[in-house]
Amino acid sequence: MGIEHAWDRIGCPVEEIDTPALLVDLNRLEGNIRRMAEFGARTGVGIRPHGKAHKTPIIAQFQLTAGAVGICCQKVGEAEVMVAGGIRDVLLSNEVVGVAKLARLVSIAKIARVTVAVDALEAADALEVAARRAGVTMGVVVDVDVGQGRCGVAPGDLALRLAEKLAVMPGLSLRGLQGYQGKLQHVVGHAARAQAARQANARLMETRSLFEARGLPLEIVTGGGTGTYDTEGAIPGMTDIQPGSYIFMDREYREIGGRSGPVFDDFACALTVLATVMSAPTADRLVVDAGLKALSNDAGPAAVVDLPGWEYTPAGDEHGLLMICGDGRRPRLGEVVHLLPSHCDTTVNLYDQFHVVRDGRLEAVWRIAGRGRVR
Amino acid sequence: MGIEHAWDRIGCPVEEIDTPALLVDLNRLEGNIRRMAEFGARTGVGIRPHGKAHKTPIIAQFQLTAGAVGICCQKVGEAEVMVAGGIRDVLLSNEVVGVAKLARLVSIAKIARVTVAVDALEAADALEVAARRAGVTMGVVVDVDVGQGRCGVAPGDLALRLAEKLAVMPGLSLRGLQGYQGKLQHVVGHAARAQAARQANARLMETRSLFEARGLPLEIVTGGGTGTYDTEGAIPGMTDIQPGSYIFMDREYREIGGRSGPVFDDFACALTVLATVMSAPTADRLVVDAGLKALSNDAGPAAVVDLPGWEYTPAGDEHGLLMICGDGRRPRLGEVVHLLPSHCDTTVNLYDQFHVVRDGRLEAVWRIAGRGRVR
Repeated sequence: MGIEHAWDRIGCPVEEIDTPALLVDLNRLEGNIRRMAEFGARTGVGIRPHGKAHKTPIIAQFQLTAGAVGICCQKVGEAEVMVAGGIRDVLLSNEVVGVAKLARLVSIAKIARVTVAVDALEAADALEVAARRAGVTMGVVVDVDVGQGRCGVAPGDLALRLAEKLAVMPGLSLRGLQGYQGKLQHVVGHAARAQAARQANARLMETRSLFEARGLPLEIVTGGGTGTYDTEGAIPGMTDIQPGSYIFMDREYREIGGRSGPVFDDFACALTVLATVMSAPTADRLVVDAGLKALSNDAGPAAVVDLPGWEYTPAGDEHGLLMICGDGRRPRLGEVVHLLPSHCDTTVNLYDQFHVVRDGRLEAVWRIAGRGRVR
Repeated sequence: MGIEHAWDRIGCPVEEIDTPALLVDLNRLEGNIRRMAEFGARTGVGIRPHGKAHKTPIIAQFQLTAGAVGICCQKVGEAEVMVAGGIRDVLLSNEVVGVAKLARLVSIAKIARVTVAVDALEAADALEVAARRAGVTMGVVVDVDVGQGRCGVAPGDLALRLAEKLAVMPGLSLRGLQGYQGKLQHVVGHAARAQAARQANARLMETRSLFEARGLPLEIVTGGGTGTYDTEGAIPGMTDIQPGSYIFMDREYREIGGRSGPVFDDFACALTVLATVMSAPTADRLVVDAGLKALSNDAGPAAVVDLPGWEYTPAGDEHGLLMICGDGRRPRLGEVVHLLPSHCDTTVNLYDQFHVVRDGRLEAVWRIAGRGRVR
């Protein structure tokens, strides 16, 4: 009846995958995992990849096999998916508030080692009630605002005072500190980004010293992302870093610049959206079947891959325009094109499946089990 | 084990629904359906609501019960969901290209009356091959570019020539014309919008006259959206209009202006995202648990509802900031707030479920069966 999608034929050439499809290049994904693992091995810092980028247990398993110390999640629903998918060490790098969510959180803590970020005593009290009721001890880290201006307690004395209270709550097990500065990840230019990251991290390290002086636990001192991994991962006292997007990369990260030039290419672009030219009305304009519901636009438009002379603009929920911008071959009606998402996390969150490709052929289809798990 | 979401308790107060949740106010939704149906009854124009806004068969059924002449879809996957949900007249208001999609399209045409937009002879040829193979006759409308600059054949002679070819293809049944100008829907100011809509529509009507002179079918002459419904719906010769967003409304549509003032309030805001204050770090800043994965940002930030003195800014995938912007009560940690999406279609596409509320209580949970159906 055609009511459900026909399953794409494993082994078929990429060009035959129905579109729009979210493609993962498996060779590149494996390379990215390997390179980050090598960085960890070289510097001694733990890699605790952020699962919010991929939301998919099989990818988390690959990361752990390569040596990751655990997986970060941003929502309880993501953590549930990871635990169901076999992950046994989850850092919920975010505050969890509300009776329903706390009940779910302590429930998965019966199966896996779960640690959650805390930035307020009131929230810790509610967490402890839930933990006691479930008969578990919940791991916690004090979430410090190192300049993000979002969640987190102020570094220094306020963080210390909160930690001292958490340390003596019987239902909780204080494990250390978290300080993540998301805004720094996209500072353009490696030197500028590294300097900003060191400044932000200094606040975390000052707080770390206060913890140390009081004999508070420092099993986990965590932060950093894809943009600052090499700077923050090299700072003594950091136990682990939380990069997420490195697994896929995207247009925005590509443009932040690397050590050796204007392109940040420590990791390869492993994620593209395959789209089809569905209308070819004029010589300078083509329409593809990927719009705002196939490519997130919060970080601007996607980039056209391997098709010089054309640029992409979203044109509604289900359409994108390819406009001519230079010399190049004009794709014909029905031809597929590859588009590089501007922001991998929010684009992944639009899809139910990754179409996993190796050497030009469909190798697997992976369910994105954590997609839409905002609760 | 807490691996799947606990089902929210039907009958519970709104404030107890776990967040972020996509709320539909059922009284308002019913009112919007009624008002659009009354407009159709008054003017004689058919209402063919666009299903891309809600992607949910039960809402389409309500629209049909109120007198809608059929349902529009933008993707084959949406049409499959609607047909599976009992809808028996679907206008696929978009071009369909590719062997896999055409096979699915002709397959649902065995169950329902399906009409699809065509803007190129090459595409029509492929459609006819698929239709013949399946043993169905596919309904088609000629899609005319009335100024959108996206898909569509140029109005006038080019449209006529395409129609004459479609009319004699045995596997196809030409039903008329479509001319939709999406950019006009958000022209600010009712008078300016109405004038622009009449100009765009004039191109459709010129083409209609050419069809009429040649005796080509004009069973369907369709276009128009939520912003231009009253102008385009009142033009003689239009058989039906395709409004989608009227069912929910959103911040962007609210701001286009109405007949009587700066707010377009012909339809009520029936869609909000319920979010929780998850961190309250400073007096002037709160953090809610709804970010870019809970509220689309392609049309700018969401608006805060019924909480004067605070405005919303997305702050990452899973966070939003409420910043103080005037006098008002400060919500406390754990309190829920209502946010009005800036763009309903792309926000709905982030969720698996509507939480349907009436008079402050959860009345139903509806699966958004067409979510993510970009293929």
